[in-house]
Amino acid sequence: MAIRVVCYGLGPIGIGIARLACARSGVRVIGAIDIDPQKAGRDLGELLGREAMGIVVSADAVETLQRVRPDIVLHATQSSLAAVTSQLQECIAAGADVISTCEELAYPWSAHPQLAADLDAAARAAGVTLLGAGVNPGYAMDALPIMLTAACAEVRAVRVLRIVDAAQRREPLQRKIGAGLTTDEFAQRVREGTVRHVGLPESMHMIAAALGWRLDAGDDTIMPVIAERAITTEHVSVEAGQVAGVHQIVRGYIGEREVITLELQMYVGAPDPQDTVAIDGEPPLRMTIAGGIHGDIATAALVVNAIPSIRQARPGLLSMTDVPLVHYW
Amino acid sequence: MAIRVVCYGLGPIGIGIARLACARSGVRVIGAIDIDPQKAGRDLGELLGREAMGIVVSADAVETLQRVRPDIVLHATQSSLAAVTSQLQECIAAGADVISTCEELAYPWSAHPQLAADLDAAARAAGVTLLGAGVNPGYAMDALPIMLTAACAEVRAVRVLRIVDAAQRREPLQRKIGAGLTTDEFAQRVREGTVRHVGLPESMHMIAAALGWRLDAGDDTIMPVIAERAITTEHVSVEAGQVAGVHQIVRGYIGEREVITLELQMYVGAPDPQDTVAIDGEPPLRMTIAGGIHGDIATAALVVNAIPSIRQARPGLLSMTDVPLVHYW
Repeated sequence: MAIRVVCYGLGPIGIGIARLACARSGVRVIGAIDIDPQKAGRDLGELLGREAMGIVVSADAVETLQRVRPDIVLHATQSSLAAVTSQLQECIAAGADVISTCEELAYPWSAHPQLAADLDAAARAAGVTLLGAGVNPGYAMDALPIMLTAACAEVRAVRVLRIVDAAQRREPLQRKIGAGLTTDEFAQRVREGTVRHVGLPESMHMIAAALGWRLDAGDDTIMPVIAERAITTEHVSVEAGQVAGVHQIVRGYIGEREVITLELQMYVGAPDPQDTVAIDGEPPLRMTIAGGIHGDIATAALVVNAIPSIRQARPGLLSMTDVPLVHYW
Repeated sequence: MAIRVVCYGLGPIGIGIARLACARSGVRVIGAIDIDPQKAGRDLGELLGREAMGIVVSADAVETLQRVRPDIVLHATQSSLAAVTSQLQECIAAGADVISTCEELAYPWSAHPQLAADLDAAARAAGVTLLGAGVNPGYAMDALPIMLTAACAEVRAVRVLRIVDAAQRREPLQRKIGAGLTTDEFAQRVREGTVRHVGLPESMHMIAAALGWRLDAGDDTIMPVIAERAITTEHVSVEAGQVAGVHQIVRGYIGEREVITLELQMYVGAPDPQDTVAIDGEPPLRMTIAGGIHGDIATAALVVNAIPSIRQARPGLLSMTDVPLVHYW
């Protein structure tokens, strides 16, 4: 029997998720939600660039969820947990499991312990499971490095480097990393908190929790990457000397010792995209995915691929390390 | 409260597991079993090269298991599931979870469906969990490639290459791969089934099952790697022209299409050890661990690292894809 799914949020990532969910046998998309007046009222098939599906995108989440009662909601709206908590609660109230791309949900216990506790309690009471998923956070810089430690008798430090050529990515991401800003504008946006990758501290805390490490301190550094030459993407134009993107490093310490280093370079024109994980341990391990994992496709894939794992998992708010191994199916 | 563990089997891998289990906080080794008269009756600490622990190695598994009633047995005796089934049943009868390095247990449903069904039924009835674990099978050529597919919207084929420099490995392994044999002796041993790596077909079936693929055909090719120059390890001497080890390839097909390729080169003096996984999919992914994952350390690590995952898992016979993500802790 097909798993009945509602897609909640139809931005570029949500559209990718919906497209993938529609194509996957064993999944039946039975509803779609988006508050954007450009989308609400239209047929989902039309938004996906295919024939009409008889599923009208609704701006009324509660009505839709209560009416169609999905097994699971694939949720892709915002990065901030505070901003999406009420949306997640609506899903829980409708008795649905939820897989969400909300970056702060990937490991919310450290930055948002009260919101996490409330969501966990609500999910347990409703007998549903809530999971934050996506390529980053949720996979490339946390779950994958964590899985690599399985082969280690001892782990002293975990270092992850992800380099993303943002020119290949969606427009909101290119904006979010500050591509095309001056360095002054970039510094201003960093101060406002609007230019940054959301999720690196979440990844750090997920790793620390999995390895049983209690971090004594952490820091989060955001620097601009300056374009050495002009670059034009489908979405932005960057002059030489302007900002091409972000270089963000999160570090976790036990005592004076730097035990977790997560370095993310995400800028238009990055010449050597990659995902590299170096485990300082016994044995030491160094894993590289040359070219890196393409974020937008991979995030949609991870959300859809996590469906069987969340269906098998116990109720509550879980992270990627709590559910059976997520994989393509 | 510490998890109470019995170590069953104290060959090179079993000793590595016991050493690691003794060092891991949260685990208490409370018994040890080995039928070898060189080991039975001696103190486990002595076999580990440390001070006496007050744990006498017993040759009587049933008596030991029933007397100490461990939470979990770490089992490392033989590769053949038929050979170890009665040992596993003894553990189940004592109400213990079991993590075993038995290669054929990693994914037994294909080659040994009846034994698998019997063990699953017994484990469920006893409310315990049974898991085959190790670096290969169980990780490098199956669980890790399976996890990599999580980032893929589509997977067309999975290719895994593992090259191991057997000179760095334990003596039984160097013997098992035929190092030091003539090519005629090697061919004879292959016919007898005594020279081969046990577990490649298990890895193939684990991957196929995870991805939901029904294979129409499979093949398993074993070739010798011939030494180009003389090599002497701690355990064997190989003349130029003699066998340095095995080159084994397992292939799985859907129709005419080769969808799984697992290639293992394991020989003394291999110059470029590595673990490489190539996913032909959307997006394509190519992961390399230069130097490869050291098998003996990693197998012991995987067994001990799997303890929390098996304690959280449901009863029954499970594989690495059924339990929460295994990692260092």
